[in-house]
Amino acid sequence: MDGFAVQAERTFGAGPDSPITLRIGREAWPVNTGRPMPPATDAVVIIENVNFQDDENFEIEQGVVPWQNVRRVGEDFVASEMILPGHHHITAYEMGALLAGGVLSVEVKEKPRVLLIPTGSELVAPEILVHGEPEPGKIVEYNTVILAGIVEAAGGIPVRHSIVQDQFEVVKQTILEGVRSDAHLIVINAGSSAGSEDFTAAAIRELGEVFVHGVAMMPGKPTILGMVEGKPVMGNPGFPVSAVLSFEVFGVPVLETMLGVSQDRRPSIVAHTARKVTSKLGREEFFRVKLGKVGERVVAAPLPRGAGSITTLTRADGIIRIPASSEGIEQAAAVSVELLRPAPQIERTVVIIGSHDLTLDVLADELIPYNVFLSSSHVGSLGGLMALKSRSAHLATSHLLDLETGVYNWSYIRKYIPDIPVKLFRGVTREQGFIVRKGNPKGITTFEDLLRDDVTFINRQAGAGTRVLLDYHLDRASLDPSGIKGYRMEEYTHTSVAVAVLSGVADAGMGVLSAARALGLDFIPVATEEYDLVIPEEYLADQKILTLLDVMRGASFKSRVMALGGYGVDRTGDELSEPAS
Amino acid sequence: MDGFAVQAERTFGAGPDSPITLRIGREAWPVNTGRPMPPATDAVVIIENVNFQDDENFEIEQGVVPWQNVRRVGEDFVASEMILPGHHHITAYEMGALLAGGVLSVEVKEKPRVLLIPTGSELVAPEILVHGEPEPGKIVEYNTVILAGIVEAAGGIPVRHSIVQDQFEVVKQTILEGVRSDAHLIVINAGSSAGSEDFTAAAIRELGEVFVHGVAMMPGKPTILGMVEGKPVMGNPGFPVSAVLSFEVFGVPVLETMLGVSQDRRPSIVAHTARKVTSKLGREEFFRVKLGKVGERVVAAPLPRGAGSITTLTRADGIIRIPASSEGIEQAAAVSVELLRPAPQIERTVVIIGSHDLTLDVLADELIPYNVFLSSSHVGSLGGLMALKSRSAHLATSHLLDLETGVYNWSYIRKYIPDIPVKLFRGVTREQGFIVRKGNPKGITTFEDLLRDDVTFINRQAGAGTRVLLDYHLDRASLDPSGIKGYRMEEYTHTSVAVAVLSGVADAGMGVLSAARALGLDFIPVATEEYDLVIPEEYLADQKILTLLDVMRGASFKSRVMALGGYGVDRTGDELSEPAS
Repeated sequence: MDGFAVQAERTFGAGPDSPITLRIGREAWPVNTGRPMPPATDAVVIIENVNFQDDENFEIEQGVVPWQNVRRVGEDFVASEMILPGHHHITAYEMGALLAGGVLSVEVKEKPRVLLIPTGSELVAPEILVHGEPEPGKIVEYNTVILAGIVEAAGGIPVRHSIVQDQFEVVKQTILEGVRSDAHLIVINAGSSAGSEDFTAAAIRELGEVFVHGVAMMPGKPTILGMVEGKPVMGNPGFPVSAVLSFEVFGVPVLETMLGVSQDRRPSIVAHTARKVTSKLGREEFFRVKLGKVGERVVAAPLPRGAGSITTLTRADGIIRIPASSEGIEQAAAVSVELLRPAPQIERTVVIIGSHDLTLDVLADELIPYNVFLSSSHVGSLGGLMALKSRSAHLATSHLLDLETGVYNWSYIRKYIPDIPVKLFRGVTREQGFIVRKGNPKGITTFEDLLRDDVTFINRQAGAGTRVLLDYHLDRASLDPSGIKGYRMEEYTHTSVAVAVLSGVADAGMGVLSAARALGLDFIPVATEEYDLVIPEEYLADQKILTLLDVMRGASFKSRVMALGGYGVDRTGDELSEPAS
Repeated sequence: MDGFAVQAERTFGAGPDSPITLRIGREAWPVNTGRPMPPATDAVVIIENVNFQDDENFEIEQGVVPWQNVRRVGEDFVASEMILPGHHHITAYEMGALLAGGVLSVEVKEKPRVLLIPTGSELVAPEILVHGEPEPGKIVEYNTVILAGIVEAAGGIPVRHSIVQDQFEVVKQTILEGVRSDAHLIVINAGSSAGSEDFTAAAIRELGEVFVHGVAMMPGKPTILGMVEGKPVMGNPGFPVSAVLSFEVFGVPVLETMLGVSQDRRPSIVAHTARKVTSKLGREEFFRVKLGKVGERVVAAPLPRGAGSITTLTRADGIIRIPASSEGIEQAAAVSVELLRPAPQIERTVVIIGSHDLTLDVLADELIPYNVFLSSSHVGSLGGLMALKSRSAHLATSHLLDLETGVYNWSYIRKYIPDIPVKLFRGVTREQGFIVRKGNPKGITTFEDLLRDDVTFINRQAGAGTRVLLDYHLDRASLDPSGIKGYRMEEYTHTSVAVAVLSGVADAGMGVLSAARALGLDFIPVATEEYDLVIPEEYLADQKILTLLDVMRGASFKSRVMALGGYGVDRTGDELSEPAS
C-alpha cells in the first residue's frame, strides 16, 4: 500500500493518547503500491494514517503488525505452480499472468496455414474490381473470402490462391504445388459436383487418395475429403452456404486437431419452431433460423433453404440440425439451436412476422443504436395474425382490406385472433400498383389488361394483403381471376415479384413502388393502402417494443421512408382505434 | 445446375418412349453451376439426364419447364434491399454477402486508438527483458499488456506508451502529448491512489477537468475519469485486477460509444454459490468464480479477492457482481454470473473441492486434450466432504487420517457424509514433512523442536489433512499444541505455507516436498500419507469423471507426478475398498 515502510515492532504501543513519532529516512521510508520493500522493514503505515509534523517526522496513533499492508511474494503464485495448462488459448488476461509469473516467452502451437484455391473460369477476384464492375458473364469470387474469415476465427492462417481455370491438368498441378508448399490443409472450392468442373476428385485420386466423395448433409453434399503426400486435401462445394457449412463441419475440426485444442462448439439454446419444417430422410439438414424471445419461449423462424443464399447465413441467428433419420419438425416443437449470435442479443430481438415491406429494413437499421434487433419473416398478413395466435411473434405486420367495409385489418383481427387482446398501430401508407418492365412495353394500365392473352401475371401467395387488394379490385370490376395467365404463379415478397418481371417470367405483378424502383422497373399506381402493426397488449410493456414505436415516430425513420418513394408517414406510430361497427 | 442450357419449349414432349435429340452448340450449350445462362436459353437439362449420342448430339427422355434448374437473378437479394444494417460488425459471412451483392467497399467506423501510459519508476517493460531478468527492485510492467488485449477485443487499436516516471510534470506533459496525438482515449495506469504517485488526478485537473475520482466498486475503487481538450482521459488503478475491471467497466463502454455499437455484454447464467460470500455495503464488489455443473445445478466457487492476483482472472470462469446495497450472498443462493468462458466448457468441467495438492495442476493439464476441464478449490479435506454433502462438487480430495485406526478417509466419510453413497479412489501417496529455510538454520528435525522459543510455526487451517497429521503426531508424542508459537497462524495451501517460511514469517511449516522444492526450501520428511479421491456413486456414470480416472491411471500423468518428487503412484486411480471394522 502507499505509505511508509517501517519495522512493525517500532510502532507497537501507538494510540490516540500515545502517538509515536517516526523519522523519515531513518525509521520510515516512503513506499508506493507495487514497490519492493526497503531492507529491514516488514510493514507499511498507510499514508492516510500519517500525521506529518515537519518534512522529516510524522506521528502515528495506531501501530502496525508485521506484514500489515504488505503484499508478500507469492501471494498470487509461486515457482512450480502452473500458471496456465497446456492447449490453452492465451488471451489478454493470460498474457498478464505469464508476465506476472516472470514468463517472458512460451512455446506455442504453429498456426495451421490453409491454402484456399478457387476454381472456375467464370470467376473474378474481388481485389481487382475495387474500382469497377465485373465484365458481363463474370462472377465475383467470394467463397474463399468467407472461408478465409472462418480459418482466421478458428486460429489458422488463410492463404487465398489466385483463381484457377477449371481444366483438369491445371487443377491437378495446383493441388500438387499446394501440397508441396508450406500449407497444412488444401481446400479446392467448387468443382466438386457432377459437372464438367468435377476435376477435383479425379485430381486428388491421381495424386493420392480420396476417402469421401459426397456426404449425407444438406447443404454441403458434394464435399470431397482426401489426402495427398500426407497432407489433407478437401474439395468444397460451390454454392456459398454449402461451402461454408461443409468447411465448418469438416475443415474446422482438422484445424482444431492441428492446434491440439478441442475448440468450443457454438453454444446451443432450446427454441420452438415458428412453423413446420420438412426434411429429407437420409441426410442431415442444416436450417438457418432467425431467433427471438416471445414471452418465455425462444422462437426459431426458418430462413429459406437455398444454398446459393449467402444472406441466409448473414441473417441467421442460429442453425438447427435435423438428423438424417428425421423427416422434419412439427410447428412449435422444441429443438436445439446452435447460436451464431450472442444469446443476450436474442433477448433484445423483436420478432415480426407478417407482410413484407421494405421499410422494415429501414426500421431494423434505425433500431440498432438503441440495441434493439429485428427478426422479420415474410409470410403475408394473415400468416402474421396466425403467428400472434401461436405466440411466435411480438407483432404482426398487416394490410388486410375488408372487402365490404373498406376498413383495413380490424375485421380480420376480430375474425382470426378474437381471443388475443391487441392494439393496432399505423405503420405507413403506401402506393400499390402494377410493376411492369421499363417503358411498359405491353401497355398494362388497368385490371382488364391483366386478362389479355399476351400478358403473363405473377401473383402473391394466398393470404398476402396485396393479393387481397388484387382480388378486391377484380371483384369490383367483375373480372374473373381464372382468366389471368399466371394468377396461380406465386411469389412471397414484393421484390420477388419485381424480379419475376425483370427476368421476363411475367409481364406484370402487383406490388409497391419501392420494389419497382429498386430494379428500374415501371410502376402504374392503382391504390393507396394501410400497412399497420398488430401488437398484443401483453408485449406493450416490453421496452424493446416501446423503443420500436418511438423510433417509428421519429423524424429520422420517417424521412428515410419518404426518400424510398410511394409512402406516407402522416400517422406513423399512432395507435388506431377500432371503428364502431 | 451443371448440364446444358436450352430453350425449355424445345424439350416439351420428351419421354422414355419419345426421346428428343438436341444438338450441342445449336440447341444446347454446356453450362456449369454458377455460370450465367447463354442468350435465348431459359432452362437447364442437368448432366445426369443427358444421354450422349455422339460428340455433337444428346438425347433426353424428360422435358424441362422454363427456368427449371436455373437460379434467377435476385434469388438471394436485389438492388435496394438492405444487405446489412448499419452499426454491424462485419464478419466472414458478411464479407461474402457484401461481395455477392456487388458491394466492393463500405464505409466503416474508424477504430478508436487508445493510448495506454504506464507510470512508475519501479517498472520495466517486458519487451526489453525477453532475454533476461529484471534488476532487483524492478517489476515487469504488464498491466498495459492486458489492457491492450482488452482494447483489441473491444474493437480498438491499443498504443502502449513507454514507461513514464512518476513525477508530476512528466505525467502531466505525457497526458498533454497524448491528448494532442491521434489517440481517442488516454489511459494512465497506476498513479491513481492516494500515495506520492497520485499525480494523475492533479495533472488532469490542471489540464482539464476531473469528473470522477474514486468509484464505488471493488476492485477498481481508485478510478479517475476526466476530460482534457475534449478527449476522455482515464486514470486506472495499479493492481492488475483493479486495472482490468476498472477498464472493462468504464473504458470499454467509451470505445463502444465511439464505435457506435452497443457491444454485447458477456452472456450470463444462473449459478449457486459454493460457500457464503460476504461483501461490504456501499460498493459493488466483483467476485471471480470457478464454475462447474454438478448434477443439475451450476456451482460457483469464489476465488480469492486479492486485486493483486491476476490469476484470479485467468482461473476464473465468470464474475459475480454483488451490488453496493448487499452485504453478501448465502451459500447455495442463486446468482447471475457473467461468463468469461463459453458455456459448453462449463458443462465439461469437473469440480474438485477439498485438499490441495500440486498434482491437481498436472491432472488439469493432462485432461485438456480430452476436452475435460478442472475447477479445483482448496478448502481442506473436511471442507471437501462438506462440499459433497451440499452437492457443490463432483469429487473431494482428502487425506484424513483416523487417529485411532491409522486408516485414511473412511471413518471421516462414514461420520460426515453417511447418507451419500461414495467410492474412494487412490490419488497419490506423498511425503509430508517440515518445510524450513535453506540449510535448516534453526535445526528443526522433530516435533519437539516446534515448541522451542526461537521457532515460529505456520499452521494449516482446521480441517486440513495436514493439520490432522500434525495433531496426530503431536498427540502421539504427548506434545501440547498451545506451546507452539504460530500454531494459530493459518494458511490454506502447501505453497502458502512455503511462502510464509521463505518470507521469514515463520521458521517452519508442515507440507509436501514439492512445495518446499519449488521455493528452494529444505524439507524434513516425517510421514507418508494417502491423498485420495472421494466420488459420489451418482457421478461415476459421468463420462468426464471416467476420463479423469483413466487419465490418472495413465503413464503420462504418473511419470509427471513422479518427476515432482515426494510422490508415490503405485495404486493411482484404483478403487479402494473399505476395511472391515
